[in-house]
Amino acid sequence: MRGEKKPRLVMKFGGTSVADTTRLEGLVVRVRRELEAGYDVAVVVSAMAGETDRLVGLAEGAVRVMDGREYDTLLSTGEQVTASLLAMMLSDRGIPARSWLGWQIPLDTDGRHGRACIEKIGTEGIERRFSEEGMVAVCAGFQGVSDRGRVTTLGRGGSDITAVALSVALGAGRCDIYTDVKGFYTADPRIVPKARVIGEIGYEESLELASSGAKVLQVRSVEMAMRYGVKVRVLSSFEECGGTSLVGEGEGGARMEKQVVTGLAMSTKECRVTLAGVKDVPGVASEVFRPLADRMIDVDMIVQSVSKQDGKTNMTFSVQSEDVDEVEKMLIRDREKFPYEELSIDKGVVKISLVGLGMRSHAGVAQRMFEVLAEKGINILVISTSEIKVSVLIGEDYGELAMRSLHTAFGLDEGE
Amino acid sequence: MRGEKKPRLVMKFGGTSVADTTRLEGLVVRVRRELEAGYDVAVVVSAMAGETDRLVGLAEGAVRVMDGREYDTLLSTGEQVTASLLAMMLSDRGIPARSWLGWQIPLDTDGRHGRACIEKIGTEGIERRFSEEGMVAVCAGFQGVSDRGRVTTLGRGGSDITAVALSVALGAGRCDIYTDVKGFYTADPRIVPKARVIGEIGYEESLELASSGAKVLQVRSVEMAMRYGVKVRVLSSFEECGGTSLVGEGEGGARMEKQVVTGLAMSTKECRVTLAGVKDVPGVASEVFRPLADRMIDVDMIVQSVSKQDGKTNMTFSVQSEDVDEVEKMLIRDREKFPYEELSIDKGVVKISLVGLGMRSHAGVAQRMFEVLAEKGINILVISTSEIKVSVLIGEDYGELAMRSLHTAFGLDEGE
Repeated sequence: MRGEKKPRLVMKFGGTSVADTTRLEGLVVRVRRELEAGYDVAVVVSAMAGETDRLVGLAEGAVRVMDGREYDTLLSTGEQVTASLLAMMLSDRGIPARSWLGWQIPLDTDGRHGRACIEKIGTEGIERRFSEEGMVAVCAGFQGVSDRGRVTTLGRGGSDITAVALSVALGAGRCDIYTDVKGFYTADPRIVPKARVIGEIGYEESLELASSGAKVLQVRSVEMAMRYGVKVRVLSSFEECGGTSLVGEGEGGARMEKQVVTGLAMSTKECRVTLAGVKDVPGVASEVFRPLADRMIDVDMIVQSVSKQDGKTNMTFSVQSEDVDEVEKMLIRDREKFPYEELSIDKGVVKISLVGLGMRSHAGVAQRMFEVLAEKGINILVISTSEIKVSVLIGEDYGELAMRSLHTAFGLDEGE
Repeated sequence: MRGEKKPRLVMKFGGTSVADTTRLEGLVVRVRRELEAGYDVAVVVSAMAGETDRLVGLAEGAVRVMDGREYDTLLSTGEQVTASLLAMMLSDRGIPARSWLGWQIPLDTDGRHGRACIEKIGTEGIERRFSEEGMVAVCAGFQGVSDRGRVTTLGRGGSDITAVALSVALGAGRCDIYTDVKGFYTADPRIVPKARVIGEIGYEESLELASSGAKVLQVRSVEMAMRYGVKVRVLSSFEECGGTSLVGEGEGGARMEKQVVTGLAMSTKECRVTLAGVKDVPGVASEVFRPLADRMIDVDMIVQSVSKQDGKTNMTFSVQSEDVDEVEKMLIRDREKFPYEELSIDKGVVKISLVGLGMRSHAGVAQRMFEVLAEKGINILVISTSEIKVSVLIGEDYGELAMRSLHTAFGLDEGE
């Protein structure tokens, strides 16, 4: 069999899936099964749960100003520990395997410490061991190497990026991301008990759901998967289930009869900011938002009310809770640049989003959403829409009621 | 000042010296002092105390058969954590610094995992940063890289080896090894309260003391220092003191008037093995010891008594306690090859050694030793001597009495 090119599979396991050696034992079983199914396998692992926090704690206890190069060198040990442990366990159980650190693969990055982008992945070493020895490649996720030979990390969700990028480089037919959830849900099951796992989801839908609060896959890794057409599947490490497959538009049989709405998301990290009595002249919006953009503060929903007779208007927008204090300071500081009558900030709001590719061809989804909310007496504060998403800002007390009502109204409940 | 070549110093800090960030803070002070004294500084660090044990525990809990390559990859993270933490602390305190992992230096080894030997150290990168930026090199000890690009570790005492080898490669004028003791003592101060720190000691003396039970420096690193004439100094991380300087013969002013005996050591890990009634024919000793040598079992002291009239003799030797069970099994197994009347094993013995370069030119040291022990009524079981050492095996109950008596008799007590 050696020498013959087999189909390739990348399997990625996150922090809770590699929390201890008992969990790692479960991974060995999963890897063996895929080898027996005829794949050459590359595994990407995260740091063991809690390990990254421990390392961050060490650094934060030691310095005021963090040297990004050293911080990356420190944090990358977490994935190195998991990769070497899993490789030795696989070997011990009779499965040829070796660990690959970022610099060994090599996974070349642009050298931006703490948030590096992958430039190139050398797969010659891994591929040679696939064909000569049928050897499993256990790759430390999240880490790469700069052209100066320093360790770099890829930032949040970095191991997912490693897995998707490695799938591209190896031409893997599938990239299985094992997580602590069963896949993408029609809604967060802690909020909507009748939520179900979505069998197939479009890349764009998953992006909208991710950016609307469903924390399954990091946005960057979905974007990369979409760009290169990587067949990503999100699965549970702990339960046997089909998970969620990410598919391109037009792919996937089940999507032939797809729902108009694929899923719902609720984000509780929103604040509503209102500037009342702003002068309604050209350029004022850019005056307001440019300083925020300069500081990389994401402004999500913007509504400008119709101008009143006095030539003034109200401007409402939403920002992430973590940014709201900074936004408040900036708006107060800049009051003379764009005079306003009153600044009010409402932290007690949530954003509810309906996502679905079907919206493109089905009119009236937004209208139906507003009706459902109105029936429950829920007041909509701000609305925004995109081609495949409708989002509303509502009072946080109504969040769960809105989610459950919409879930039922759009036919997403389990068993339907 | 940049561009001018400064004298160079290597400083090595062991596990207890880097146990936490408070300890690391102390290192920053010491490094700063040496920079201000005009040195370019390379620091070699071990894993934080307890960290290596934690990693070993992870591996031992996971596998039956250890893959040496993965084990090295796992263990090397300990030193990586310390090196990156210290480098970020130095930078944070205004001292330019960067960490160097084994593969970054590069520290090339022969690839024997778990006990690699250093083949070559590339110093171009470190030296360039010395001269261009006055940058402290914080090197992860214990680790190197094989010609296959895998992480290798140097085995026990590996960070001391890294420090000495780096001193050779950098042409450092001094190599300061910071430990949790003040230096080499005339005897273990826990046993002999009047013991003092030895200001200067010959390489060979320190080797004899080390192999006789004084655990200050690993034998391999002393041998390398001796071979290349590296000026090693052993110091305390926790107290200000002069420490012990290792010097070649003929070096060092203080040694002009040196003591005949430099120090005493006691090893409690010895067992006495006696084969009574062995046939006294040529070749019998080799029959007895060859199988032990084949198994890498170290036989230390050997005494064969004068043949009795029946043509039989008694053969006594000492082995390490950890080997004695295996030795017993082998001797019982091989009884038909070299018949003997009785095998007896005495685990209740200790070895006391007197070490001193002065013995070469001063006769009667051994004789004086025997007298002192006789005066205290201590029975000597086995004797062995080398050019600069006399060792005796005695009953363990007499160990402390013998050490204190000899320490006084040879003029080593503090204040003398």
